[in-house]
Amino acid sequence: MQNKPNKFHCFYPSSKKSYLSGKRHPEIQVPYRVIQLSNGETASVYDTSGAFTDAHSSIENGLPAIRSTWRKPESSGNITQLHYARKGIITPEMEYVAIRENMRLSETTPENAERENRLKGHSFTNPIPKQITPEFVRDEIAKGRAIIPANINHPECEPMIIGRNFLVKVNANIGNSAVTSDISEEIEKLTWAVLWGADTVMDLSTGKQIHTIRENILRHSPVPIGTVPIYQALEKVDGKPEALTWEVFRDTLIEQAEQGVDYFTIHAGVLARYIPAAQKRITGIVSRGGSIMAKWCLAHKKENFLYTHFEDICEIMKAYDVSFSLGDGLRPGSTADANDAAQFGELQTLGELTQLAWKHDVQTMIEGPGHVPMHLIKENMDKQLKECQEAPFYTLGPLTTDIAPGYDHITSGIGAAMIGWYGTALLCYVTPKEHLGLPNKEDVKQGMIAYKIAAHAADIAKGHPAARMRDDALSRARFEFRWEDQFNLSLDPETAKKFHDETLPKDSAKSAHFCSMCGPSFCSMKISQELESI
Amino acid sequence: MQNKPNKFHCFYPSSKKSYLSGKRHPEIQVPYRVIQLSNGETASVYDTSGAFTDAHSSIENGLPAIRSTWRKPESSGNITQLHYARKGIITPEMEYVAIRENMRLSETTPENAERENRLKGHSFTNPIPKQITPEFVRDEIAKGRAIIPANINHPECEPMIIGRNFLVKVNANIGNSAVTSDISEEIEKLTWAVLWGADTVMDLSTGKQIHTIRENILRHSPVPIGTVPIYQALEKVDGKPEALTWEVFRDTLIEQAEQGVDYFTIHAGVLARYIPAAQKRITGIVSRGGSIMAKWCLAHKKENFLYTHFEDICEIMKAYDVSFSLGDGLRPGSTADANDAAQFGELQTLGELTQLAWKHDVQTMIEGPGHVPMHLIKENMDKQLKECQEAPFYTLGPLTTDIAPGYDHITSGIGAAMIGWYGTALLCYVTPKEHLGLPNKEDVKQGMIAYKIAAHAADIAKGHPAARMRDDALSRARFEFRWEDQFNLSLDPETAKKFHDETLPKDSAKSAHFCSMCGPSFCSMKISQELESI
Repeated sequence: MQNKPNKFHCFYPSSKKSYLSGKRHPEIQVPYRVIQLSNGETASVYDTSGAFTDAHSSIENGLPAIRSTWRKPESSGNITQLHYARKGIITPEMEYVAIRENMRLSETTPENAERENRLKGHSFTNPIPKQITPEFVRDEIAKGRAIIPANINHPECEPMIIGRNFLVKVNANIGNSAVTSDISEEIEKLTWAVLWGADTVMDLSTGKQIHTIRENILRHSPVPIGTVPIYQALEKVDGKPEALTWEVFRDTLIEQAEQGVDYFTIHAGVLARYIPAAQKRITGIVSRGGSIMAKWCLAHKKENFLYTHFEDICEIMKAYDVSFSLGDGLRPGSTADANDAAQFGELQTLGELTQLAWKHDVQTMIEGPGHVPMHLIKENMDKQLKECQEAPFYTLGPLTTDIAPGYDHITSGIGAAMIGWYGTALLCYVTPKEHLGLPNKEDVKQGMIAYKIAAHAADIAKGHPAARMRDDALSRARFEFRWEDQFNLSLDPETAKKFHDETLPKDSAKSAHFCSMCGPSFCSMKISQELESI
Repeated sequence: MQNKPNKFHCFYPSSKKSYLSGKRHPEIQVPYRVIQLSNGETASVYDTSGAFTDAHSSIENGLPAIRSTWRKPESSGNITQLHYARKGIITPEMEYVAIRENMRLSETTPENAERENRLKGHSFTNPIPKQITPEFVRDEIAKGRAIIPANINHPECEPMIIGRNFLVKVNANIGNSAVTSDISEEIEKLTWAVLWGADTVMDLSTGKQIHTIRENILRHSPVPIGTVPIYQALEKVDGKPEALTWEVFRDTLIEQAEQGVDYFTIHAGVLARYIPAAQKRITGIVSRGGSIMAKWCLAHKKENFLYTHFEDICEIMKAYDVSFSLGDGLRPGSTADANDAAQFGELQTLGELTQLAWKHDVQTMIEGPGHVPMHLIKENMDKQLKECQEAPFYTLGPLTTDIAPGYDHITSGIGAAMIGWYGTALLCYVTPKEHLGLPNKEDVKQGMIAYKIAAHAADIAKGHPAARMRDDALSRARFEFRWEDQFNLSLDPETAKKFHDETLPKDSAKSAHFCSMCGPSFCSMKISQELESI
């Protein structure tokens, strides 16, 4: 379906893809992107774009099944990464993510010493090791503090670690709705999202073609894919929540696990007793899954079947190593509803369910809000760590104000950066179309860039040892008027160059010691450079 | 020059401008915007757009000189707002801003009680009064914690309060450079910036027409105008920093004060002894004014003449009630340089200068960075409050990462929201063109929206009593599928509507109980509403 070699060269000039092999597992090949600078240096950056951006890729019917060639660890039945980690086994997936996390490691030079000391951030493990080792990865997974969502039936997936002692990750939501979008468009959004740096992708499709769309997405995805299985289950009962049954849901879980979905959002914490509190809110229940399960509970006057069948769900998921993303069905949909009894009640239940999942060695992360004013964000993070015993947190935003529909990638980018700093492991992006309509390709890009900014700002604040190298390389390029390097080191070189060229399009301006912002005689950087010769 | 009545109706549908009179000073007329909602309610919002948006405005040669008709307080020589405040006198300007700050006051209903309690923010005065009174304004000004920049020669100006116990304000930079832009374009940017909510505007022009551009901007500006007088002084000595003299600078100050500039950025804290530390940085000195003064100091081997003549400057400024914006000439230009010895050394000097300015009853605020990673932002705020005895802080961003040129309204919007929450009174916007070129009209809008989001998110987090009303009104409209109200209550109705209409353009979709994001059967709000009838 896809055959677009050299996509890199359009969007990331002066870049090439390269690979590092494992030491323990030589069969693994970890990709990264090398940016060639005009001063002879290079900068290596983390890359999730998959084989689409390899120089000679030819992807007709899906990506290569890389993981199928990897050595399988010996197993006594359970094949989850959590199980292996607890047994002390370092899987190829663990070594893969360890290599990947070090990709942006900064150099320690004597001149950097004062700077390093002044800028040291807040790390959670004391400190995050300078070099992320496979053993550190194993240990974090064993403690439940990190997960590698990697279904054994998703061999195309490049493993991804999600945990607060690693780089902050970004999830992109794609998927059609009954109103709009088709298969090829969703594949295009997927490759587009990973091109801009998505670390995981959720397929939130809800239309009739849901199975086929998911199959296509999985076979083309180099990153873990998550779904919300209740959406498909609901399709099977003609959209009537009250007609849902455990059996329909169970069959849907198995169908999706067989296909290779890496993590499932399961709204098992929406308990009947929390619903009255949610009904007092300004915006009620805004999670689709949450509102479906609430309706089921009230219609049947019974407890949520996802809760009562939770260990049955664990049994299915551990057979494929599907990870839990325990859904926050009662997340606030407005700042007015933040941190209320319904939200925090559900969070407590998610903590109990985490223990159950861990009993089965099923990897688990926890979903979080939503809409939360800045001063209430930290309470969310602190409570989640406590209630859920440090299982990774996966938040949507949060949006810090409700007054800017059309710009919610910004209202939520603020909250995402903060909660990432406080310890959230995975940020679910929000696009400019949030609340208004289904995102198109441009929206996906805008959402991704805003969230790569948030995640990176959080990595710096956390003091991740590999985080600041790119900032410093770009700042040096900026100060030395290496314009092309400044563009190429940025998250979106094409846009940076286009903005510069709007006023100074000539090639000569690319070596000029000023831009149109201040003009030649007011350029502070130029004067500042001249100072050095005084 | 401008004659565009009803600009409102293009950009803010279902809105009309209205005015409130003063009680103490009945001659003052404080503008606000009333949004008519489809359910019969109205929402009143703060508005800085000036007479341009009055229903029948006709502005050929500038705005009406409103302040010239106001009663002047009795004076014993000094005519600054700080002088009056210390004497216990409440000026028309003080009552004006008090009325304006209450514009968005939320209703206290019994059903809001739990919510109010749960969402209470961090206020600095314990607490910010529920109703901002003229006496509270006077007291905050007398303490130096707030300023009203209002040159006696800028009668067109609608007074604006800047202080951390008031709403967080946003400054928009406009102005041409030697490379691009002309007078009518700058006036257009000014009216555009105030249309999108700029609370103050700085004219940073540097070209040959600098005096004429400023004159036009002042006569058309309903908000306080700031400048950096050293730019014009430098033009007068043909762009050679070493040729600058106190006399040239003094004459420039008087020229600009006569015209009506409301606040001056003065880089008097760039002392010779701080320069070596700045030269060790990755990005040296990135403030234009800072680099000019550093060059002067080094060339003459003398102390900065803005520092040595500081009290002479005070004498000029107090004659017109021009406020100080003490410039941070040594602000960091990259996250690597944040919070270093050069920056904090200068801040200490700005604290000493604040005391000197206050001795002359000159209103004073302090400029701040720049580029600062999230975890170092609070230290900036805390140090500023301490060193500068709670004088208002006025920051540029700060940018929380350097890797996203083209998106620095977002990298800095994150930092701006945080530092606003921590106590910054005025946020200088950053546009997407930052580091790349001179912003055009669209960039001004994008910068303004990002910063209105940041300022508003900060107001909510601070617990400003008037802040959350608009969020709640919009959230209610959202939950009740009043689409037009959701658009009209937003910061940018046109964009919100356009995004919605991309997938569901028909009028009937404006009353539909879903959008294209989830489609009809997966709309959580719809299901949630249905829950209420169970």
